[in-house]
Amino acid sequence: MTAGMDLQQILDVSPFQRWLGLKLVRADAQGLEISMAWREELVSNPHTRWLHGGILASLVDLTGLYAILASGNVATATADLRVDYHRAATGGTLTARGRVLKLGRAISCAESFVTGADGKLLASGRGTYIMAPPA
Amino acid sequence: MTAGMDLQQILDVSPFQRWLGLKLVRADAQGLEISMAWREELVSNPHTRWLHGGILASLVDLTGLYAILASGNVATATADLRVDYHRAATGGTLTARGRVLKLGRAISCAESFVTGADGKLLASGRGTYIMAPPA
Amino acid sequence: MTAGMDLQQILDVSPFQRWLGLKLVRADAQGLEISMAWREELVSNPHTRWLHGGILASLVDLTGLYAILASGNVATATADLRVDYHRAATGGTLTARGRVLKLGRAISCAESFVTGADGKLLASGRGTYIMAPPA
Amino acid sequence: MTAGMDLQQILDVSPFQRWLGLKLVRADAQGLEISMAWREELVSNPHTRWLHGGILASLVDLTGLYAILASGNVATATADLRVDYHRAATGGTLTARGRVLKLGRAISCAESFVTGADGKLLASGRGTYIMAPPA
Repeated sequence: MTAGMDLQQILDVSPFQRWLGLKLVRADAQGLEISMAWREELVSNPHTRWLHGGILASLVDLTGLYAILASGNVATATADLRVDYHRAATGGTLTARGRVLKLGRAISCAESFVTGADGKLLASGRGTYIMAPPA
Repeated sequence: MTAGMDLQQILDVSPFQRWLGLKLVRADAQGLEISMAWREELVSNPHTRWLHGGILASLVDLTGLYAILASGNVATATADLRVDYHRAATGGTLTARGRVLKLGRAISCAESFVTGADGKLLASGRGTYIMAPPA
Repeated sequence: MTAGMDLQQILDVSPFQRWLGLKLVRADAQGLEISMAWREELVSNPHTRWLHGGILASLVDLTGLYAILASGNVATATADLRVDYHRAATGGTLTARGRVLKLGRAISCAESFVTGADGKLLASGRGTYIMAPPA
Repeated sequence: MTAGMDLQQILDVSPFQRWLGLKLVRADAQGLEISMAWREELVSNPHTRWLHGGILASLVDLTGLYAILASGNVATATADLRVDYHRAATGGTLTARGRVLKLGRAISCAESFVTGADGKLLASGRGTYIMAPPA
């Protein structure tokens, strides 16, 4: 990790992540927790008011990558992403929790779980991430 | 599909899809093509200027679902999504092409390929979608 | 579940599962554990002696489906399967542990983790399963 | 590829692949085709006589890896695998066709489609494969 920058700052370097409005709740070697406030622009359908699947996929993707950063390792990009949609998200602050499943030299694997304000599981998934070459 | 609404209108009903700025280029029973203009808010990292993986995941997700709609069938939600990131997207208009792999009564499967302005493959993937119960 | 048949019997109804040589170690509503003895026929490459990825995929697939059965629900087929390979398996008895992530009416999602004799994680993954229509 | 060995020989080096009974039908830089004869030991359930999902996953996995070999590149292991089950396979010779989606230095991505004797799509999917370091 860049000296002098914490994970919240790194999250906010990204224009898209700033737009999502992410807040780092907790981070350590065992994983991290990110929250995101509800916003009408994130909605898929104004009638059902379900959150767009692409937003949940974004949360799963970035939470896994930041779980690798929180473990003290550097991933530079996502190789592949898989998301399961368990329940429609229809309002309230979302919480994404990520943890590393396997650290590797070339690629690492992390999983993330997204819950709603009532604690119910909304989506979860995994990413495979490309690791930075050793310095 | 709702009588009197075309796919472009349905795309634009969604606040998040309006924010993405999607344009339906072509749609028929064999599949569809959607384009999205580059925008700085979609960027993951202002130094590398790579498009955020969540945006590419959103394109793969929605293009697959709209390919099912374009085939004359109705999917109501994504059950799961898988995205492979092939090359970093660093500018220019993106094109997503989707097609149905298998239509089913309960779930259907579609695949999507996202290319850059130079035609190079940037990301691709598949979604499994929940079908609307027969009317 | 069929009255008068336990999960070990159901596992052994399947010719391929008999060939794999599966042993139900534990099963309850929270999940189940299946062990599989090493056998040379399961090897991918006689030089590296790595277990074939298809065998690990089979374990992830069937362990997820049987976790649904162990929860008292009936899944009839796999809709899709995703497997992450974490470490090469090179001998010894394997243990697969599965649990349901989300039960649904039409489809359910389960995850499985496969460890080696030393407890190290070898592979893990998820399946989406088609549920039997209510009786 | 090892000089003096063709892809059929490499397929047959693997004990599990010999057990599956694979036949290389065609291979070139654009992809390859492998056939597998039906056998009762591959069945998931003797009542439905459906092929086991793990066998279809094995076919998707190995066909993708051999598509990379057929392109003149060397993959050493599968990083992750994703399989969609489209229709139950209930008999007859199966054909798996694979092609490389993206060759990379560290990892590559390939897709495979498995059809039945009647040409219908039974399963398809993708693997991400670890590439051998340059010689």
